[in-house]
Amino acid sequence: MGRVTQRRKVHKYVLDGSPNALDFPVRHREDVLAVEEPLEIRIGALSFSVTMRTPGDDFDLVAGFLVSEGIIWAPEQLVSLRFCAGEDENGVQTFNVVEAQLRPDVELPARGRNVFTSSSCGICGTDSIEAVRKSSHFSPAADPLTVPADVLASLPGRLREAQDVFDVTGGVHAAGLFRITDDGGVQLLCLREDVGRHNAVDKVVGWALRERLLPLSGLVLQVSGRASFELVQKAALAGIPVLAAVSAPSSLAVELAEASGMTLAGFSRGTSLNIYAGQGRITLPAALPAAPVPAEVPGKEPAAVRANVPG
Amino acid sequence: MGRVTQRRKVHKYVLDGSPNALDFPVRHREDVLAVEEPLEIRIGALSFSVTMRTPGDDFDLVAGFLVSEGIIWAPEQLVSLRFCAGEDENGVQTFNVVEAQLRPDVELPARGRNVFTSSSCGICGTDSIEAVRKSSHFSPAADPLTVPADVLASLPGRLREAQDVFDVTGGVHAAGLFRITDDGGVQLLCLREDVGRHNAVDKVVGWALRERLLPLSGLVLQVSGRASFELVQKAALAGIPVLAAVSAPSSLAVELAEASGMTLAGFSRGTSLNIYAGQGRITLPAALPAAPVPAEVPGKEPAAVRANVPG
Repeated sequence: MGRVTQRRKVHKYVLDGSPNALDFPVRHREDVLAVEEPLEIRIGALSFSVTMRTPGDDFDLVAGFLVSEGIIWAPEQLVSLRFCAGEDENGVQTFNVVEAQLRPDVELPARGRNVFTSSSCGICGTDSIEAVRKSSHFSPAADPLTVPADVLASLPGRLREAQDVFDVTGGVHAAGLFRITDDGGVQLLCLREDVGRHNAVDKVVGWALRERLLPLSGLVLQVSGRASFELVQKAALAGIPVLAAVSAPSSLAVELAEASGMTLAGFSRGTSLNIYAGQGRITLPAALPAAPVPAEVPGKEPAAVRANVPG
Repeated sequence: MGRVTQRRKVHKYVLDGSPNALDFPVRHREDVLAVEEPLEIRIGALSFSVTMRTPGDDFDLVAGFLVSEGIIWAPEQLVSLRFCAGEDENGVQTFNVVEAQLRPDVELPARGRNVFTSSSCGICGTDSIEAVRKSSHFSPAADPLTVPADVLASLPGRLREAQDVFDVTGGVHAAGLFRITDDGGVQLLCLREDVGRHNAVDKVVGWALRERLLPLSGLVLQVSGRASFELVQKAALAGIPVLAAVSAPSSLAVELAEASGMTLAGFSRGTSLNIYAGQGRITLPAALPAAPVPAEVPGKEPAAVRANVPG
């Protein structure tokens, strides 16, 4: 997988008191790490931002970043993407600078990311969510999508099955864009992995922009980890009606999902999940699956029964 | 805990096929969320950055952010911190803007965070780690600290025991600063929690600056989650010799730890951990603990034995 993963020597200490650990408490082995490198994003001649990311799908990442920043929302606004031709001191192209050319009518924020232009007291004078919320050209609020709860709860498992890098490193986040068909079938349209959650989502959104698929109406975005304000905002800017996270959402993530008319699921764990906003899109399966009746196996009785059987 | 946590109504779907789930697949309950709100950081009249954070310890967060950005490193450089006096439309002080006054001789970066000032091809022409690495006034490289492996592996458990917010939300990260005494004792000096890993570390570092404890020689920083380049950099700028993470480090985190002379531990899990850099600081306990011999309890034999006993 080239620059996506890197092998490193590691000293593994095992101190569990097992006979093997007493003899060999320190073991020398190779570990596979997720690669993290800086990517400089340039808009024309302007150095706009630097993000730490896992290399790969960098054009998707830059396109999605521009959508997530509210700068572009249509593929025509993005004229070209190219790696900067520079080299490091050894003459090797680093592929760590991407230059985007935008259509001349695209407006750029007056200053860098996350920096207010006003010298007045930005967040004090307005509701905090409005102060950091970017205006969106798409609205998921009217999206008529409905999703069966059991299908939505199954998506983390499907995402994990499709993850390449996590399997070997245990150290990357994933975002997957899913279509739920009328018969309850599930289609994975795009999966992206990165050391940064926000990058994984940007890569999915940028893929969609470049495939001319924005807004992502009628689709579900499943992410590993937690749901922050930033992730909900990225989904809203791409017009995604349903965002599901494996872990907890933050308070502002829930508030923004409500304000945007999105459905937000959390703690999505195979056979259960929580809905924090937009419950109207969640349906129950026509026939709920019943638990299988356990077969009787000798020696596998519950502990309370077994305790009465002398060994 | 005030604004640190927030109660929200949630629809919990349980689809595990159990009789109770068949009767009541949707349950209405209250969930406790970790609060996430924007904090605008101002330096004098200049709006410098906005970070999404969990309210609380905001002065520590701003002080630590200024250290992590390489702007200040001594308490004398930070003249004052105050909440902006502004109010929202309901006349309520939001406590979402902090203004720092720095000593006049403190140099500010020419532009906002994460934005290069040069119009030349920043990352291309230099080694990528040098392009994003901030120069530090402290060096952990010569720190003579040694830490027994078993004590280091025990720190995530101690951190978790001391965490207030995680217990109720499951949605926050933590950073804890520990002192290991000569007799193997462990002292938790400072614990901070936040929806953002980087904020939790900034809050610990800012606390240390304000307590006049920088550089944090001879101490260990334990963080929940993974170890990124950014976290290693924050620890290095605070002069911390040992950083331990519960999960995987990234490639650049390991490279920066090596370049900074730090010890970096990952997958720290109670009775085992991996050392990715600076193994020289890790010692083995004089007497390794042996596994306790299991007492013989009827009905609790291993499965292979039990399978021969007819039920």
